[in-house]
Amino acid sequence: MQFPTFDDLLAAHERIRPHVHHTPVLTSTHFDRLTGARLFFKCENLQKIGAFKARGACNAVFGLSEEQAARGVLTHSSGNHGQALAYAAAKRGIPATIVMPETSAKPKLDAVRGYGGRVVTCAPGTKAREEAVATERARTGAEIVHPYADARVIAGQGTCARELIEEAGPLDAIVAPVGGGGLVAGICVAVAGMAPRTLVFAAEPANADDAFRSKRAGRLIEDDAPQTIADGLRASLKPITFHYVASAVEDVLTVTEDEIVAAMRLVWERMKIVIEPSSAVAVAVVMKNAHRFTGQKVGIIVTGGNVDLDRLPWMA
Amino acid sequence: MQFPTFDDLLAAHERIRPHVHHTPVLTSTHFDRLTGARLFFKCENLQKIGAFKARGACNAVFGLSEEQAARGVLTHSSGNHGQALAYAAAKRGIPATIVMPETSAKPKLDAVRGYGGRVVTCAPGTKAREEAVATERARTGAEIVHPYADARVIAGQGTCARELIEEAGPLDAIVAPVGGGGLVAGICVAVAGMAPRTLVFAAEPANADDAFRSKRAGRLIEDDAPQTIADGLRASLKPITFHYVASAVEDVLTVTEDEIVAAMRLVWERMKIVIEPSSAVAVAVVMKNAHRFTGQKVGIIVTGGNVDLDRLPWMA
Repeated sequence: MQFPTFDDLLAAHERIRPHVHHTPVLTSTHFDRLTGARLFFKCENLQKIGAFKARGACNAVFGLSEEQAARGVLTHSSGNHGQALAYAAAKRGIPATIVMPETSAKPKLDAVRGYGGRVVTCAPGTKAREEAVATERARTGAEIVHPYADARVIAGQGTCARELIEEAGPLDAIVAPVGGGGLVAGICVAVAGMAPRTLVFAAEPANADDAFRSKRAGRLIEDDAPQTIADGLRASLKPITFHYVASAVEDVLTVTEDEIVAAMRLVWERMKIVIEPSSAVAVAVVMKNAHRFTGQKVGIIVTGGNVDLDRLPWMA
Repeated sequence: MQFPTFDDLLAAHERIRPHVHHTPVLTSTHFDRLTGARLFFKCENLQKIGAFKARGACNAVFGLSEEQAARGVLTHSSGNHGQALAYAAAKRGIPATIVMPETSAKPKLDAVRGYGGRVVTCAPGTKAREEAVATERARTGAEIVHPYADARVIAGQGTCARELIEEAGPLDAIVAPVGGGGLVAGICVAVAGMAPRTLVFAAEPANADDAFRSKRAGRLIEDDAPQTIADGLRASLKPITFHYVASAVEDVLTVTEDEIVAAMRLVWERMKIVIEPSSAVAVAVVMKNAHRFTGQKVGIIVTGGNVDLDRLPWMA
């Protein structure tokens, strides 16, 4: 198992800079009042493809040798990583094949195709997806870029934390949603390299709480096909990301589906940004655990904004 | 009639800086491809109170003498200016009375009260509102801060164009929605002072096209209670703002209600920001008139993001 270093993260940042946005950091008097903390929202929903995953995918794709690149890239994804890999591959001019659950929201399927990716659908659940990837891999010889169990991807994702810390200054904590754990792992790499006093909290839906249970148990516990509105967080940790959750993450905090929807709506209403349910998980965690962050400077990674505008969760 | 100078705008900028956000400028590959132009979206939806109107209101309120300020401020507004004046007054610790049409969206009424403003409702239409203001003025002696026919307000609104030009560099055009015309007037002041080659276009709903007809006719034509989804643009020009539309604005371009809704939805979906219909008018105008902007650098003022999330216009 190869862990990315802080130098890998710095190299990733240089590599991806021409291909991703330096996203803004927003503040909100309303949320500061609600929580008693000073919050800094790193807006990766305004990132290319609408999510931080553009970072990891670009780092993986642009780090390939010419020979590797020529065979294309391949992944499975519930959505944003698929779009990200399609985007990155198109930028480099190489083919991308994305294995997606057939239950994915239509805008996510369309978006992958819109970026030039080839979509292969499969049954929901981690196992079915991984089998489909193996089949495609055998057929094409494409480079697999796992959505999160990949040192290149982790180093790429961590660059958003570096930008956040550089812009907001020293933070007491960074709160980010955890699904497969690639983002949280990347944040841990950034924090270890540049802000070792900053605590990293992982935010998780109670309905998909494999990270919460794994950290408590001290061993990796996987879910298969958990049910949560936070569709970006249905994946389970893998050994490489569990390593960070177990050893570097301060705590895993969970919220209910209702808390996720309420936080999502409140961000739309007060901050005027479109965030997806997965992002709202981090906001909801800070609201629910405000007592832990009183008077602190807290960074929140707003991970993405890819939603189906015809099916908003507060609509009956 | 007192016209603000570029020096007034610079003074306004210094005065309001502690009280308003320096909002980000976003770009979008998707909209650039759609239009063939290079677009720079000045995100005043991310401004305090969710709209650029925080700028003009703060300039008016913080420019008052102590004696004037003690009697409070008063205005009529279909929404955002009311919130802005309530916000600015609360910041200075003085009372604000806001006369609002009884048809205003509930979130707008609540928001004015949330900022500490006192709401007085009246029938829709310019005349009814102005009568209600006169009554309140006689009772309180408060300083009237008109939503747009006010040199202080115009100078304040223009500061967003200054920031846009400083960040995006020389622009071929700036497109902004026109209702009462305060923003467009302020942009004209900014452009005259710092970027005289930049053309200013006013974007207007065809259903509320008093600026379009006034410019064509060469004289001020007022609407009363026009019907458009762009609720921030139902006001008519006044002589001071007509002056800019007649003499400094390159053209007034109109769009249909359907075009407004389509542009609004597309911005939410692709740019992940919540914009109100009035803002979408400017985006729709650029999309509809893309041939006029081919290869150009075009700034768009995204004026605000105050919408009722339970009543989105693309929902049946």
